[in-house]
Amino acid sequence: MQEIDFTWPKGFQTGTAHAGFKEDQQLDMAWIVSDVPAVAAGVYTKNQFQAAPVQFTKNLINQNHELQAIVINSDNANSFTGQEGLDHANETHQLAANKLAIDPNLVAVASTGVIGKQLEMDKIENGLDQLGLAPESDIAHAILTTDSCEKKTTVSVMIAGQPVTITGIAKGSGMIHPNMGTTLGFITTDANITGEVLQGLLSDLIQSSFNQITVDGCMSTNDMVLVLANGQAENALLDQSTTQANDLADFKAGLKAVLVALAKMVAQDGEGSNKFVQATVVNAASVVEANQVARAIVGSNLIKAMLFGEENNWGRIVQAIGQTQAQISPNHLDIFLADVPLVKDSQKVLADQDQVATILAQDKIDLTIDLHVGEATGQAWGCDLTYKYVEINAAYEG
Amino acid sequence: MQEIDFTWPKGFQTGTAHAGFKEDQQLDMAWIVSDVPAVAAGVYTKNQFQAAPVQFTKNLINQNHELQAIVINSDNANSFTGQEGLDHANETHQLAANKLAIDPNLVAVASTGVIGKQLEMDKIENGLDQLGLAPESDIAHAILTTDSCEKKTTVSVMIAGQPVTITGIAKGSGMIHPNMGTTLGFITTDANITGEVLQGLLSDLIQSSFNQITVDGCMSTNDMVLVLANGQAENALLDQSTTQANDLADFKAGLKAVLVALAKMVAQDGEGSNKFVQATVVNAASVVEANQVARAIVGSNLIKAMLFGEENNWGRIVQAIGQTQAQISPNHLDIFLADVPLVKDSQKVLADQDQVATILAQDKIDLTIDLHVGEATGQAWGCDLTYKYVEINAAYEG
Repeated sequence: MQEIDFTWPKGFQTGTAHAGFKEDQQLDMAWIVSDVPAVAAGVYTKNQFQAAPVQFTKNLINQNHELQAIVINSDNANSFTGQEGLDHANETHQLAANKLAIDPNLVAVASTGVIGKQLEMDKIENGLDQLGLAPESDIAHAILTTDSCEKKTTVSVMIAGQPVTITGIAKGSGMIHPNMGTTLGFITTDANITGEVLQGLLSDLIQSSFNQITVDGCMSTNDMVLVLANGQAENALLDQSTTQANDLADFKAGLKAVLVALAKMVAQDGEGSNKFVQATVVNAASVVEANQVARAIVGSNLIKAMLFGEENNWGRIVQAIGQTQAQISPNHLDIFLADVPLVKDSQKVLADQDQVATILAQDKIDLTIDLHVGEATGQAWGCDLTYKYVEINAAYEG
Repeated sequence: MQEIDFTWPKGFQTGTAHAGFKEDQQLDMAWIVSDVPAVAAGVYTKNQFQAAPVQFTKNLINQNHELQAIVINSDNANSFTGQEGLDHANETHQLAANKLAIDPNLVAVASTGVIGKQLEMDKIENGLDQLGLAPESDIAHAILTTDSCEKKTTVSVMIAGQPVTITGIAKGSGMIHPNMGTTLGFITTDANITGEVLQGLLSDLIQSSFNQITVDGCMSTNDMVLVLANGQAENALLDQSTTQANDLADFKAGLKAVLVALAKMVAQDGEGSNKFVQATVVNAASVVEANQVARAIVGSNLIKAMLFGEENNWGRIVQAIGQTQAQISPNHLDIFLADVPLVKDSQKVLADQDQVATILAQDKIDLTIDLHVGEATGQAWGCDLTYKYVEINAAYEG
């Protein structure tokens, strides 16, 4: 498995347009289309006010785990819009299917942007008129809202002698605290795999990728990650049979690499952030607890503000760990900043303050916590809390 | 029951000193002393790394719910300090008991400040040398750390014809997200009540007072609220007998008024805050769920930043409610800003924007949420998220 230059897998094309949601001719609508029907899997926000496109696409995928196209708009989330919002999602998918001349049941929809505003269907129609098909990458730009950069990645995996490509794009910068799905993430692959196996892999891997990032503790109504696999790589079908155990493990590693890479890009582009933070928890009682502690650390406002200020206030890390219900050993906690121990066996270590200051000044901060109670490991990713975060969210018009 | 000018209940005296923890001769040590042994109740942080004074005082109170004095220092939390920290707590209580010439088992200790630093016993001894006894109020100042103002209140209740006084002081401004106890709160009363009844009242009332405030989602290692009742009002003993049901209800109302008033003062003085926020949730399925939703609203970084920016971005309130597990009725949600409806039956209301802007410019913001699923009510209190919060916590030295 290796990361390669961004490219679309065999048989996938995209289109982008300025439909009129955003100002200044900015791209605000896009679609991803497979030449043939692809198996599909999805994970969705657990926010109780799930937005219309999330409800709609979830129902669609759960019917038979098959899709051929995803239509996406930014700047309007079609969230908290009632039956009218669901009607708009349905209308969008019908119109797109007509234009592509495919079965509407193969067309999913996704939206991101402001909550509580009805989707302007004249803009949707305007966008659909313009959408073409080409193997281009500016779709990674068209789906952004407050993001400051595109999030996209491609890996290549060999499956029984056949090269398989896995490509993902994502958006997200604020209201980032996913649970079972997140933000918007779209992964395409030419792998030949069953929908059931694909859904199983996604539901498993999302726990240690997108669900382990947080920007502000706020879980969006529109979070959704979809994977489409169109089989064009023509590898032997990946199903539940044990003969493909190794091939499946290889594909899973590739899919995980794409999910983790995108998740880290979203965390790194957290609204107003200066620094990217990775927390690694080792020797926890279970993976669930390791992940829980890691996410508590990257989610703490006090730790986030401390990292912005480049202060070594490790007491806040102790506080955040203790706030979780994870099993701890009160007298055997170790905390490392990069490879410098700050706490060893629950005792403060007299670290070289110049060295600590140098590490804290970097724009990527690595924290490692050794809980000394088991053998499980977990990671989480986040960013610092800055004046800019407050500014962005004090001024954002809803 | 009525609020009266700040005063200590009969038979309580206090002392303050500059022990040397803080600079510039600032007060940093204090005690509260009853003329006679008082029944005592406490609630304590659920952070797993409970600080030494919290562990120590909890053990002491659980022995026989009786105390005569509480010794408090600020600027050093004696938290995450291992066995040495417990030894220091024990030594402080012995030294204070010697000076007061009372049984050490009647002397509790409390600390607040930096985590992970051993308590300097020479400063404790220096402070104890200076501590006197007088019915003064500057103890509310001596226990502060990053707080910008004192938190103190007194109410008077008639219990079977006898006036009973209940007085509370508290501190807390950052790392505020209590669970079963909080920050530091000390309540004294001259009521005649059993320790068992007092503990029951406190454990119940803390859920809808201190446990319903949040500044930053971070639960301290040192949170603790203690109540001492010395019986000097000489009212008929409040115990479990039903003949005192009305008297007990009156006392409970007074105690609740003190706890809620102090909790609101702590929320209002949240680090860097410009605005105080009260969320009221009505018609919830249960009090637990009403409290949960109210606290989710005052705890949301996005809502807090929006209030700082004085924007009417009510989609974030929907998001925060949906993130909880509380029962909702998706098409019947109402949101009010003061008495102005923003959302009615899950539909946006076209509010008068000038009126909304005027309300958002005030320094106390009232949000009311009607869930339309039951009859329970809950409230929570918090503050906005400001540049100043980031500045304070980026610069705070640990």
